[in-house]
Amino acid sequence: MTTATSPSHAPSQSHPLVAKHADVLEQATAALAARSYFSRYPESPSPRVYGEGAAQAGQEAFEALRDKAFGALGDVATDGTWTGEEVSPYGPALGITYPHLDVDAAVAAGLAAMPAWRDSGARTRAAVCVEVIEGINRRSFEIAHAVMHTSGQPFVMAFQAAGPHAQDRALEAVVAGLVEQERVPASVVWEKPGRDKEGNPAPLRMQKDYRIVPRGLALVIGCNTFPTWNSYPGLFASLVTGNPVIVKPHPHAVLPLAISVAVAREVLAAAGFSPDLVQLAPEAEGEGLAKVLAEREEVRVIDYTGGPAFGAWLEETGAASGKLVYTEKAGVNSVVVDSTDNLRGVLGNLAFSLTLYSGQMCTTPQNLYVPREGIETDEGHVSFEDFGARLAAAVGKLTGDDARAVELLGATVNEGVRANAAGLADLAAEAGGTVVLDSREVTHPAWPDAVVRAPGLVAVDASREDVYTQECFGPVTFLIATSGTDQSLAQFRDTVREHGAMTAAVYSTSEDVLDAAREAAADAGVALSENLTGQVFVNQTAAFSDLHGTGANPAANAAYTDAAFVANRFRVVTSRRHV
Amino acid sequence: MTTATSPSHAPSQSHPLVAKHADVLEQATAALAARSYFSRYPESPSPRVYGEGAAQAGQEAFEALRDKAFGALGDVATDGTWTGEEVSPYGPALGITYPHLDVDAAVAAGLAAMPAWRDSGARTRAAVCVEVIEGINRRSFEIAHAVMHTSGQPFVMAFQAAGPHAQDRALEAVVAGLVEQERVPASVVWEKPGRDKEGNPAPLRMQKDYRIVPRGLALVIGCNTFPTWNSYPGLFASLVTGNPVIVKPHPHAVLPLAISVAVAREVLAAAGFSPDLVQLAPEAEGEGLAKVLAEREEVRVIDYTGGPAFGAWLEETGAASGKLVYTEKAGVNSVVVDSTDNLRGVLGNLAFSLTLYSGQMCTTPQNLYVPREGIETDEGHVSFEDFGARLAAAVGKLTGDDARAVELLGATVNEGVRANAAGLADLAAEAGGTVVLDSREVTHPAWPDAVVRAPGLVAVDASREDVYTQECFGPVTFLIATSGTDQSLAQFRDTVREHGAMTAAVYSTSEDVLDAAREAAADAGVALSENLTGQVFVNQTAAFSDLHGTGANPAANAAYTDAAFVANRFRVVTSRRHV
Repeated sequence: MTTATSPSHAPSQSHPLVAKHADVLEQATAALAARSYFSRYPESPSPRVYGEGAAQAGQEAFEALRDKAFGALGDVATDGTWTGEEVSPYGPALGITYPHLDVDAAVAAGLAAMPAWRDSGARTRAAVCVEVIEGINRRSFEIAHAVMHTSGQPFVMAFQAAGPHAQDRALEAVVAGLVEQERVPASVVWEKPGRDKEGNPAPLRMQKDYRIVPRGLALVIGCNTFPTWNSYPGLFASLVTGNPVIVKPHPHAVLPLAISVAVAREVLAAAGFSPDLVQLAPEAEGEGLAKVLAEREEVRVIDYTGGPAFGAWLEETGAASGKLVYTEKAGVNSVVVDSTDNLRGVLGNLAFSLTLYSGQMCTTPQNLYVPREGIETDEGHVSFEDFGARLAAAVGKLTGDDARAVELLGATVNEGVRANAAGLADLAAEAGGTVVLDSREVTHPAWPDAVVRAPGLVAVDASREDVYTQECFGPVTFLIATSGTDQSLAQFRDTVREHGAMTAAVYSTSEDVLDAAREAAADAGVALSENLTGQVFVNQTAAFSDLHGTGANPAANAAYTDAAFVANRFRVVTSRRHV
Repeated sequence: MTTATSPSHAPSQSHPLVAKHADVLEQATAALAARSYFSRYPESPSPRVYGEGAAQAGQEAFEALRDKAFGALGDVATDGTWTGEEVSPYGPALGITYPHLDVDAAVAAGLAAMPAWRDSGARTRAAVCVEVIEGINRRSFEIAHAVMHTSGQPFVMAFQAAGPHAQDRALEAVVAGLVEQERVPASVVWEKPGRDKEGNPAPLRMQKDYRIVPRGLALVIGCNTFPTWNSYPGLFASLVTGNPVIVKPHPHAVLPLAISVAVAREVLAAAGFSPDLVQLAPEAEGEGLAKVLAEREEVRVIDYTGGPAFGAWLEETGAASGKLVYTEKAGVNSVVVDSTDNLRGVLGNLAFSLTLYSGQMCTTPQNLYVPREGIETDEGHVSFEDFGARLAAAVGKLTGDDARAVELLGATVNEGVRANAAGLADLAAEAGGTVVLDSREVTHPAWPDAVVRAPGLVAVDASREDVYTQECFGPVTFLIATSGTDQSLAQFRDTVREHGAMTAAVYSTSEDVLDAAREAAADAGVALSENLTGQVFVNQTAAFSDLHGTGANPAANAAYTDAAFVANRFRVVTSRRHV
């Protein structure tokens, strides 16, 4: 039996970008398979990395966009109107307007662009995607300011999370999609042994060609707090698998995605493809454009980050018409505190996790389960009350100085967060609990109109599930008094199974407790961080190694980035014939 | 940077079946990656392959099950009642009853069995699955009789399709699931370069363990015509990825799955696992058990083959509660006839495809598009009418002799098929067409009560989409007169996009037409067979090489077996800690 297998879907004449980005694709592919440490895009905003003047140039580029119509998208399928009402959480209105799409024309433009993109082959698509990401990387400072002034993230975090970290996640999605497409050979010769009527060997031989076909139009629905980080995986996963993408940003966070889409359109055009493979769909507040787009028959793939109500609607109605829907919604991230041999490390690490971006990360812990009899530590027995006081002090140490605090806290993103932060006393009263640390109002030295809030802590009893099993987004953390670690683990498991979580952590010196926590995390379907006391935080995941979300609890139905996130975004159509 | 990667999820102490089936897993894994020819289970029922007396023993084993309670499932979660009303399409009632489940108890039993199965590791699960398939293979003759007398398939087809071919598809699903789980390393050390305050190297090092967790209970809903072939892929894909499976057979085709489940339960128990990892859920006609099971919150994965109405309901309601739903429903399989240099080959091949199992395969062609001006062939120009007459003659040659015909046709499976076969004159009259070949009633020499029907052909105009875009299940084929191959291809593409298809074929001597057909097939999302004139038929797919379905048109939302069919049946839960 002779079998010839052609390993690649690349067309015979290779696109120039394929050679240009061969190395990065090879490295990133190996890293994703190994899940070891890999980063393509340096997270340090240092001039030694990004060049002298890069920070200044990025800020100036951002400022130059203010109070203007955003023209960098080029010739788009617009209805002739302009929209844009972004106001920085730090105070000023951005004053930028964007061309509003004509939905029919945009859908038609995306579909018209699809066949050439489909037929260019997976490796060409991946190389073009890398070229887009490289272009985005060069604008990291500009995007950092755009994200800071739409999400309220502090600047350094905006640079890292919305820049290099998001770009690494983008590259991860690209290679995940590339690998998946190349697992199917482009062509094989299939030979089945057989004999003719005289008994002589007469094998059946067929050539079988396997063609990658995209699903159709893809829709990416962005969120306010992480406009790039949470949008790039779906955007690049759909694009690399051949699907034209319409990006519908949150109306409060358009600019970071507008810049990203502009880069993509420039690169696509320069590479010989239609820029309409990536389109931006800005909307006015309350317009409901996400629903309009999601209901279009031509849209076959939807990636969504946002509130659970609309996410659930997308899942149901999408499925009813055979669309793929990937969602990240809400959850109650949980920490089980059992014991430690490094109390200061625990407190410092937790305090940082609670403080960063005022708890407005989808990965910030909300529920800390602590035995009401207290815990054993390297500083002796620490009561429940003392643990709360020590944690409050650690938060205070990080956030006590306004000027330094704002570099971690950023600004609150919306009224919901501000109301949660302001309502701790009422919350505690309702829950029969106590305010261990009120959410302090911080005055931003540079942006006086910003509403900045430090973390607050509310102690409640484990019996008050009615209070702590709801997501209370922003700088609000519950210290939940349990009858002991057994109850802590049971509540952790049950609340995550029912209400979802993006992250979980445990602190214990006991191998038995750690084992039990791993069991509980497996049952709940949430990733577990154990005894983090240093410079790794529960709310951070590393591209190429950590999965973001599991898809195994109600917080998200998918993970960045595993095979399941990409394998169904394309299909394989075979043609076969005798040879 | 040092990275240690542990490649396997296997527990430290390997299950004895892992070594026993290491070779077959390795061979099958390589075959699936290469998509070259591979078959583990010989399709020939010859005694040289399966042993002298195997055929006789299998028939006796089948007969021994008749008119009895089926006891081989062992201790099941029954409600104490017995159900079973199977009547062979060849005439006799089977007289077999099966223990009816108590749904609450069955769900509880499945869930109770899950943790040990989950923790046994992917490779152990795969090896146990292979042991199950090997056990099923040894009962191929018994299962062939069971399938013949529930589906109406002719015996040799029942042996091949329900036996070795189905077993190869089962093995394919097992290795697809195994590969997918093992793509994620069990554990890695992640090391991020860094420096301490003095500038000395101080990397962040973490161990990350990746744990495979199943979705939950899986449900497989079988169909009447291919009880094993269409159920095994979902059954084994779910089982190998850690999910306990409840198999709900069609009430008219319980026995083949009862035998299969009995083998699985025996093997699981012998391997040290709970037999309740695979349970049989027989139901009385009209009981609606599939709906009851599908609505259970604990059921997280559903595989379904059957009618489009219930399939669509499953897709919608499943999605609403976050279940994965894989469906194969209905379609209009299409053939475009443009030209040929081997007219006899075309006619013989097509006639066989239409004849086999009286057109009751989900892959049987229904719509043959032929230019009304006729086609060019190696026998000169052949008019539309002559092509129809020649095809009718070819069918007549295959089916003219009753005794030989029944070995290809089998028996009609239900009243719907019989009504379609009997209604050709009315259908033609309604459609303004003509009956080219009426569906002949064939008398079965051995089973006088069997209703056996040879293929019928109805010629209609391409304008009568109202007629030929509906599935007309059974021995009914439309010869559709088009204005030329351009219209043939356009109708092929559009009808498949809208109504779905499992298969398509084209006959042409023109490379341009073949290219256009490949484009149309890619647009329609259906696999294409080109110029089949020999011993490969459009309605047959080979495991490990051909995908069954594409998931890219309404006939099916998934394919046997690609990565997308298995990658989402499990999730990955990470735990990480500093080392």
